[in-house]
Amino acid sequence: MDSIDIEISEVGPRDGLQSIAPIMSTADKKAWISALAAAGIPEIEVGSFVPAKVLPQLADTAELVSHAKGIAGLAVAVLVPNLRGAQDALAVGPDKMTIPLSVSETHSLKNLKRTHEQVLEEVRGIRAAIDLLPAQSRPKLEGSLSTAFGCTLEGRVPEAKVLEMAEKLLAAGCDEVGLSDTTGFANPVQVRDYTRHIWELLGRDKLTGIHLHNTRGQGLANVMAALEVGLTTIDASMGGIGGCPFAPGASGNIVTEDLVFLLESQGLRTGVNFEALWHARTVLARGLPGVELYGFTPDAGLPKDFIAATPQ
Amino acid sequence: MDSIDIEISEVGPRDGLQSIAPIMSTADKKAWISALAAAGIPEIEVGSFVPAKVLPQLADTAELVSHAKGIAGLAVAVLVPNLRGAQDALAVGPDKMTIPLSVSETHSLKNLKRTHEQVLEEVRGIRAAIDLLPAQSRPKLEGSLSTAFGCTLEGRVPEAKVLEMAEKLLAAGCDEVGLSDTTGFANPVQVRDYTRHIWELLGRDKLTGIHLHNTRGQGLANVMAALEVGLTTIDASMGGIGGCPFAPGASGNIVTEDLVFLLESQGLRTGVNFEALWHARTVLARGLPGVELYGFTPDAGLPKDFIAATPQ
Repeated sequence: MDSIDIEISEVGPRDGLQSIAPIMSTADKKAWISALAAAGIPEIEVGSFVPAKVLPQLADTAELVSHAKGIAGLAVAVLVPNLRGAQDALAVGPDKMTIPLSVSETHSLKNLKRTHEQVLEEVRGIRAAIDLLPAQSRPKLEGSLSTAFGCTLEGRVPEAKVLEMAEKLLAAGCDEVGLSDTTGFANPVQVRDYTRHIWELLGRDKLTGIHLHNTRGQGLANVMAALEVGLTTIDASMGGIGGCPFAPGASGNIVTEDLVFLLESQGLRTGVNFEALWHARTVLARGLPGVELYGFTPDAGLPKDFIAATPQ
Repeated sequence: MDSIDIEISEVGPRDGLQSIAPIMSTADKKAWISALAAAGIPEIEVGSFVPAKVLPQLADTAELVSHAKGIAGLAVAVLVPNLRGAQDALAVGPDKMTIPLSVSETHSLKNLKRTHEQVLEEVRGIRAAIDLLPAQSRPKLEGSLSTAFGCTLEGRVPEAKVLEMAEKLLAAGCDEVGLSDTTGFANPVQVRDYTRHIWELLGRDKLTGIHLHNTRGQGLANVMAALEVGLTTIDASMGGIGGCPFAPGASGNIVTEDLVFLLESQGLRTGVNFEALWHARTVLARGLPGVELYGFTPDAGLPKDFIAATPQ
């Protein structure tokens, strides 16, 4: 990835769609994923291995993994809530699996119906399952520190708890952890401090990415803090769709299109081609008729004479 | 201002209202200005001394200056397009007058119907008029570098031109200059670089503030760059109302409410009380029925257990 400075991980097909009621057809999802990859998005979280009765929107995740794996150069990520989901995932071979752990245990119980210890036990089981595979077939396992910056239920979440859970996730077998502002509470000081402190405690290679929400309009300001401290992977959702259906008022992923503009405008290469990105947005809009897509840059267009960092 | 880290200059009554067709009554404007000041906003641009036939919305600016001057501790700012407007302003005694100069001369001709040299001649006239006043009655004169980061008409605006115009505005008699992203083209690198280069050329006290738009969703990301470099005054508009009516597609001031949250959440004192700020928003909404107000934080509310930097 020498040609990329910041890696955008598109979570729209998972985090975006999971809170949207109208089911997007599998064919439309495939077309959207292909269009995102064609635009240069290097990693896509294509779905979640949750029971279809919980999230019918994501029932076709296995098929989407298989489709996405056919796209050269694309890193295919999925969410797995537990060992059972991970086993289903491993059967189709994604490049990365993310298991969320809510640092707020109240949120963990509501969202995943599990205590911290129960989630960690799932992680240990997933690690064991991964290690049964030949080395070259093992997906990366990331533990996502949900509600790391605060919780709509518990309120303040102590930083010490974030560090403790990061350490425990790694000890349980995660390859790395990610910071996740599930609730839109994060501020730039938290982003910088939590990142630095996790690095000091666990090593710089154990945390590379962050998942931010725009609930209070702070998403891209927090991205600035993430860039300043040196994080290199940023989650975003095309059209800003989605959020967390289990954290009331916490909706609002940062918008991929505005993030790409923020990065490219300041000389940071994302590998993304804008024309192809607008096309992917059109494909998404066609597949989700009646669902509102957000984003300022698509509405305003690129500035006159704009020169992107990524060769277009 | 020892109790404030970052000064918010509320431009809603001028930059916000100027592009809104329904006329807000003078009584409602006074109530709004009073409510903003009561919330702790330290500076308000209450209007513009343009001919009433050009901007009927702002025809009551003189009366608003007199009203705002009666509010203890409030810095009362106005926009003046030329010497004629400045003379009208000086008759009512604002604390600060801002004259815009579009670094893009094409935009200058369209917006102010003047060449750069003609604007500078107005500045010289205003300086002379100010200097006729006793020292303690002289308002601060700021030259605002409009379209500093790019122009919807000219496209790229060379940084050298920005520096040249900054120097000329000061030479013509401005006390300081301000950077203005009239068109929503700015990126964080520009914000940092232009600020530093103006400081190197002209001295740090000659530039303290920045006016940013959210046209491409980058407003608060650019604020982060402004904070990083050390600017201390940020313009914003309650409800994000307004923009530049003469730069198509350039609407979208950054939202005061979201800016206050960004600053307070990272420990920077604005002097603003949130409850009183929400009240001021209600007063604005009442005075502008049918006009959409923007802002994420007012919709989402403050995070549970939120602690502001400013004692509430």
